[in-house]
Amino acid sequence: MTDRLEAQFAFLNEADRLKSVLRATTLCDGSRRENSGEHSWHLALYALVLADQAGPGVNIDRVVRMLILHDLVEIDVGDVPIHSANGAAHGSEATLVAEARAADRIFGLLPPDLGAELRALWAEFEAAETPDAIFAKSLDRVQPVMHNIESGGGTWTEYAVTAEQLEARVGAKIARGAPRLWDYVKARSARFFKVSA
Amino acid sequence: MTDRLEAQFAFLNEADRLKSVLRATTLCDGSRRENSGEHSWHLALYALVLADQAGPGVNIDRVVRMLILHDLVEIDVGDVPIHSANGAAHGSEATLVAEARAADRIFGLLPPDLGAELRALWAEFEAAETPDAIFAKSLDRVQPVMHNIESGGGTWTEYAVTAEQLEARVGAKIARGAPRLWDYVKARSARFFKVSA
Repeated sequence: MTDRLEAQFAFLNEADRLKSVLRATTLCDGSRRENSGEHSWHLALYALVLADQAGPGVNIDRVVRMLILHDLVEIDVGDVPIHSANGAAHGSEATLVAEARAADRIFGLLPPDLGAELRALWAEFEAAETPDAIFAKSLDRVQPVMHNIESGGGTWTEYAVTAEQLEARVGAKIARGAPRLWDYVKARSARFFKVSA
Repeated sequence: MTDRLEAQFAFLNEADRLKSVLRATTLCDGSRRENSGEHSWHLALYALVLADQAGPGVNIDRVVRMLILHDLVEIDVGDVPIHSANGAAHGSEATLVAEARAADRIFGLLPPDLGAELRALWAEFEAAETPDAIFAKSLDRVQPVMHNIESGGGTWTEYAVTAEQLEARVGAKIARGAPRLWDYVKARSARFFKVSA
């Protein structure tokens, strides 16, 4: 039993490092960049509060579990901003390989039964094929949009993002799992984008 | 529907402020004080990882939900360190009244049905009478103990805490919901306390 607790706490103490991984997005008040630990908390709260936006068959408790775990690999890989490298870095093959290796190491700290269970939830989130994972991904995309709206443009200004790029990189993924949320934040974000043509 | 989303996002944006509420406890590496947003994430992860320490009848998904919500009132009240004012400030009547008022305001931002549901979960946590709440409280107490162990003494040094005070203020509450966790961290923390007598 003590060996098992040793492994559980080794993982929990390692997870603490996620609080030192900084994202591109700032807090709503723009005072500083958000870290991936507090971001994960905020997303879990998003899931509880926006559960009525989930499609049929979505289990919110599984969504919450995925969102709690979803960024742990960033302890090794860091956050890859969605609009960086003109949108090409996020989801690149190199990033995916590095994240899988990080998942092996980090979930590997746990007792094997528990590590396999939590790693499977993380992999399900990453694959974005099940209703739970699709909804979780929508929330992960909508929160930075809301923070950019609140902070006055945020990473859209920093990376000179166009409305078309936002639609392609972010909007389509929000709309896939939560179409009304995309309609809502799109309308609220319109004032940050110049009308093209 | 738009009015409902307005209320949901007003709450979620207000909740963002929890990331700026600082606790007495530091990160494991001692580099800075922890904020209550990232602390809430870490506790939700504790619940997923230490679920096998919960007593019979505990629903881990409800525990996770409580832990996500449990510190939101600190947006108005701030964190009241457990060892501050020689242990007398935390849980004082004045603090409880202020926290209830904060809960009214913050959960009151939500649509009424949802606000009532989440406020009830918060109140259940605070009352610490149900198996879910008792286990959630144990996790909330064990995490700072582990951080003090990792950071080399932390708030025990800062507030000159004795082993007896730790047992009374913290240990009894951990042991109530997760006795083996208290045995484990008590043994690991022993080197920070002088032997009395």
